[in-house]
Amino acid sequence: MPATARDRIQQSLKRRKLDALLVTQPENRRYLSGFTATDHSIAETSGILLLLAQGEPYLLTDSRYQLQAEAEAHGFRVKLYPRGFFTLLRRLLGSLKIKHLAFESHYFLHSTAQLLAKVAKEKKVELVPLTGLVEELRLQKSSEELARIAAAVRMNEAVFTEVYRSLRPGQTEKEVAQRLENAMRAHGAEGPCFDTIVAAGPNGALPHAVPTDRAIQKGEPIIIDMGLRLAGYCSDMTRTVVLGTPDPRTVAMIRLVRQAQLAGLKALRAGVSGMAVDRAARSLIEQAGYGDHFGHGLGHGVGLNVHEGPSLSYRNRKQLLPGMVVTVEPGVYLPGWGGVRLENMAVVEEQGCHLLNHDTTFLDL
Amino acid sequence: MPATARDRIQQSLKRRKLDALLVTQPENRRYLSGFTATDHSIAETSGILLLLAQGEPYLLTDSRYQLQAEAEAHGFRVKLYPRGFFTLLRRLLGSLKIKHLAFESHYFLHSTAQLLAKVAKEKKVELVPLTGLVEELRLQKSSEELARIAAAVRMNEAVFTEVYRSLRPGQTEKEVAQRLENAMRAHGAEGPCFDTIVAAGPNGALPHAVPTDRAIQKGEPIIIDMGLRLAGYCSDMTRTVVLGTPDPRTVAMIRLVRQAQLAGLKALRAGVSGMAVDRAARSLIEQAGYGDHFGHGLGHGVGLNVHEGPSLSYRNRKQLLPGMVVTVEPGVYLPGWGGVRLENMAVVEEQGCHLLNHDTTFLDL
Repeated sequence: MPATARDRIQQSLKRRKLDALLVTQPENRRYLSGFTATDHSIAETSGILLLLAQGEPYLLTDSRYQLQAEAEAHGFRVKLYPRGFFTLLRRLLGSLKIKHLAFESHYFLHSTAQLLAKVAKEKKVELVPLTGLVEELRLQKSSEELARIAAAVRMNEAVFTEVYRSLRPGQTEKEVAQRLENAMRAHGAEGPCFDTIVAAGPNGALPHAVPTDRAIQKGEPIIIDMGLRLAGYCSDMTRTVVLGTPDPRTVAMIRLVRQAQLAGLKALRAGVSGMAVDRAARSLIEQAGYGDHFGHGLGHGVGLNVHEGPSLSYRNRKQLLPGMVVTVEPGVYLPGWGGVRLENMAVVEEQGCHLLNHDTTFLDL
Repeated sequence: MPATARDRIQQSLKRRKLDALLVTQPENRRYLSGFTATDHSIAETSGILLLLAQGEPYLLTDSRYQLQAEAEAHGFRVKLYPRGFFTLLRRLLGSLKIKHLAFESHYFLHSTAQLLAKVAKEKKVELVPLTGLVEELRLQKSSEELARIAAAVRMNEAVFTEVYRSLRPGQTEKEVAQRLENAMRAHGAEGPCFDTIVAAGPNGALPHAVPTDRAIQKGEPIIIDMGLRLAGYCSDMTRTVVLGTPDPRTVAMIRLVRQAQLAGLKALRAGVSGMAVDRAARSLIEQAGYGDHFGHGLGHGVGLNVHEGPSLSYRNRKQLLPGMVVTVEPGVYLPGWGGVRLENMAVVEEQGCHLLNHDTTFLDL
């Protein structure tokens, strides 16, 4: 666990008069403990952290993960639960004298919380639902994290370039998406960090299009939105490409979206709000008369999760901080015609931002 | 929605004096509505069903999924929530005069349940957490579902055979797992339905081993546990293979596990308990002195989820019913040496079971 994160959580628990916090959210668990196991589903966890306001933290897991937990989770005591998590927890609540216990309400099933409430009642423990405590620590990345994110972005660009070069009319959206995902793994990524989007022509009008069996054609805009996970950290990048010569309308759209992206990147720095950055990019699209066709926020944070804080949207009035990593991804979507989206990632700095992407093909038509 | 499922849910709601049920679990949603969208995560749903004790059910979703929802969810009214799910729900609770509302406690975040409770309080609605109501309907498969599962199993065997034929010493576990997953997609599967396991030599001693960079070697047992999803339905199959000539110990282990599997399949039929089938297979392994090295249940149900009911283990005292689909997968795991697991799928019938696997290579050494 990063020492500062541990200190900050302990201080935070003490301030709230809490004795302990159960961490169930998988990326929070990985961030704090270094334990890299993934969960099959929210109902089948590979382990739960028990952080204490005072003293060494615990990683609670089952025998399948024992070796991995002991090798990876430095500074954690690994405890197994051969008879189930709640049997072990009941015992620890007593031996550690925990009377006020927090849990991650945003990553805890209601049915599991009912079981937890039963144990808490029996042991006379007060339960406190919390959200976002660890996520908040994760907002500002350390230099090690920034290096990992930069490596993920570099690999993403290499994969994109490789597949882009072999893009031909007649290939289906699904086929191209599959090749991108295969190439991610061939380059050494853990895999895609979200389902790859390849949306050609009219299909591009949906911001979250799912690849279809439609063959891509010359001249139409093709949105490729892809992200991979490398050593835990995510990349997220979108390009809109055209095979052959784009028509003037497509060129105009790509230029507009690119101008909006540049305006967003120019506005991006510590001290301004996520809302203000969104506004800087959005106003260009609005002035061009396409405000109603840019129906999502300008960007989002990226780290261990591909979608995390901070948000660059009207919802976020908070000041951005140095070390935050965000996407800047304006888009315009026209039903029947298609869409254009361009997405880069950047690190927020005191005096501006540091662009993580180097690929500039297709950006300056 | 299968008409019988709809009737049974309506009866079940009336019996419990409930006016409506919110269905959030993705496979339950697909089963009842035919809506095939997947969720990015439990916190980012592609839609929620609102089933009524009387009247036509609703599919609540957002604009990204409108076209897909309308095309797929026959018999459902599709309603969008441009201002968020709870804004729409608040309105529907009033207009539909819902006073007693159930939700899927086992697929509902605690934090979301807190928001739901707020809305319910405001609208004077009683909230009832439920688990397993739809899952119970899904236990016995229709003939259409059985055909889909059989197709998934057939494809699984074809993929396995193809990759097995090109298996060579020196290939790494990760590489083989990747080739299996690529082949699944090349054959037309939606993808793997769980992370493929390839565990060679000593790595096979962990029942849930994760593929490593270890090169596979001649003579050692290699566990390959793989499953794919085809048209929504899952397959799950394990083989233990050896390149070159297995040593006598490996042969003896595979024979033992195969005998246990045959004993399990022989015991499998409607009217016996999941526990009894587990016992039939397990007793052979215990008699051979390896009882302590078979640390998991004999099998589990398979359908839209790769792990669902019924369980073949000491925990399940209920009688099996015709049309249930289960895995039969005994294993023996010896730390330092490795493991052997063999897994087939079968349909429970009145007088016995119908084996879904045809592949018998490697089974009868």
